[in-house]
Amino acid sequence: MNEFDFIDHLRAQTEARGYPSELLCGIGDDAAVIKQLTGHDAVVSADLLVEDIDFRRDATQPRLLGHKALAVSLSDIAAMGARPRWALVSLGIPPDTWASDFVAELYEGILSLAYGYEVRLIGGDLSRAPKQIVIDSIVMGECARGNAVFRSGAKPGDHLFVTGSLGGSAAGLRLIERGARVGIHELEDPDVRSIQELLMRHLRPAPRVGWGLVLGEQRLASAMIDISDGLSSDLHHLCRESKVGAIIESGKLPIDSRVAALCGRRALDPLILALHGGEDFELLFAVSPENVPRLPGKVDGVGLTEIGEIRPQSEGIRVSEGSRLWDLKPLGWKHF
Amino acid sequence: MNEFDFIDHLRAQTEARGYPSELLCGIGDDAAVIKQLTGHDAVVSADLLVEDIDFRRDATQPRLLGHKALAVSLSDIAAMGARPRWALVSLGIPPDTWASDFVAELYEGILSLAYGYEVRLIGGDLSRAPKQIVIDSIVMGECARGNAVFRSGAKPGDHLFVTGSLGGSAAGLRLIERGARVGIHELEDPDVRSIQELLMRHLRPAPRVGWGLVLGEQRLASAMIDISDGLSSDLHHLCRESKVGAIIESGKLPIDSRVAALCGRRALDPLILALHGGEDFELLFAVSPENVPRLPGKVDGVGLTEIGEIRPQSEGIRVSEGSRLWDLKPLGWKHF
Repeated sequence: MNEFDFIDHLRAQTEARGYPSELLCGIGDDAAVIKQLTGHDAVVSADLLVEDIDFRRDATQPRLLGHKALAVSLSDIAAMGARPRWALVSLGIPPDTWASDFVAELYEGILSLAYGYEVRLIGGDLSRAPKQIVIDSIVMGECARGNAVFRSGAKPGDHLFVTGSLGGSAAGLRLIERGARVGIHELEDPDVRSIQELLMRHLRPAPRVGWGLVLGEQRLASAMIDISDGLSSDLHHLCRESKVGAIIESGKLPIDSRVAALCGRRALDPLILALHGGEDFELLFAVSPENVPRLPGKVDGVGLTEIGEIRPQSEGIRVSEGSRLWDLKPLGWKHF
Repeated sequence: MNEFDFIDHLRAQTEARGYPSELLCGIGDDAAVIKQLTGHDAVVSADLLVEDIDFRRDATQPRLLGHKALAVSLSDIAAMGARPRWALVSLGIPPDTWASDFVAELYEGILSLAYGYEVRLIGGDLSRAPKQIVIDSIVMGECARGNAVFRSGAKPGDHLFVTGSLGGSAAGLRLIERGARVGIHELEDPDVRSIQELLMRHLRPAPRVGWGLVLGEQRLASAMIDISDGLSSDLHHLCRESKVGAIIESGKLPIDSRVAALCGRRALDPLILALHGGEDFELLFAVSPENVPRLPGKVDGVGLTEIGEIRPQSEGIRVSEGSRLWDLKPLGWKHF
């Protein structure tokens, strides 16, 4: 199949699901064209995944990789409190991989996640690549005018929350680095099941789209970011943009229970994974005291934990651990 | 400089030029947010350039590469008859290249072209890459509601036009493959000057943004595509979407005069380069007979040539060359 046949195939696959009335032109032209909705703001984000840096081909599967490539961008849109609507995927692919089922399965992973959120694939690009796969996933979303939640709106006194649990993705990555792989195992063994679940936390992250929508539409969050680099680094980003400090209580952090159970035997510190491990793709957000009672307990089955408070910038960004109080350094993921 | 410092630097550089009122949030958050303009349609395109496939580092310069990465996406927006407004750039970069001036110069190439068209860089991503540079350039544009020009609107009897000249970029690429490089040469020598100009046609293409705007805003074109794969392939794309055929007259093709002059001595056929050579980034478009008199002769100093006519689909896609009439095969660029 050449690239044009493949694009036709993708186009037919997306068009088989109907044609949304605002989409004037999707796959198959020089660019996609979208009718803009009056009273809305457009939100757009791009995320690049590069083989051997952001993922290892031997440690994942093409469907999981497609899922993750889109999930990371959906997470960015969720962190703006917006609804994801449209996706573009640019793919660089080595010729031997092109000749396999890899690309079709990769797009199955992308499309199946997209369908789950009524997101439509409307474009992108395909290029040959010499050795490593690269995937750039671009997601466009929308929110009611003025409802986008920026990193910059947190105020001292705001409560600090995080969705779901922390450290699971980093633990999954450590397990992969030590040789663990996704597979059919004796899942009755609770230890084996935990390992498989942690691998999936890393390889198949769930973007918190539902939470993002609730927080944005109901104007509950004063500032928000998704945890991609790691809680410590992402809290630093949020505080810097908001010109505030923060204090978090280590005892309140919702550390993934499987991480706690597995770490002891593997010389890993669950708190370090929760603070600095990246790619949990949970939402970290600030809520003013008057809005705290309005927060739902769960959205799409995912809970919420209050982990600390926004403080004046002069107080810095600190962790309280029992009677100790220490500065939180941004020790999450850095590419350079 | 780490990636966060670099992003700060880029952000400061873009913000130094003021903050457009529709841009609610640019670089520095999870996603960019744009206030949608009532009565407009949004247009978006992505183009991926991969080192050793789409460019060779030893044959270009970082500023030229940045220029080209953005130019190819601007060309897509022009081919929709839309105005480019916003750009996102995702960059995968090997560590040794990161440590050099390469990235700063690459962005200078991007930003200087962007400024020329009042396009704003609003986001993207930065990732380490193992060996090859990858650049995904995403451009968003806008047009008045219903004014986008698709590939699909051509009708039998429409006249077929192309902006500028053809074959120059492909000739530049052939010269690069034979060892020619951009540099300071004795430009008084007309042959040397021609070679340098052809190299620049390939390495620093000029997107036909002005032409795209005129054709879109004045509703002059019934169908349009930019010539990226090559005239033959792109004409096939346009005809297929419009469900029409076409005939082009080889004698009318605006072959780059420098190509004609240089080809003889280098065993290259100018007609082959003009028909199948890609990356001229000229606009190919159809115009109904009643609109032909309304076409301007030049836009931004770039002329126009009528090269043929749209015919019924049953007649196929053919070239008339003197008394001969032959089928035009789509022999332009293919990645796979």
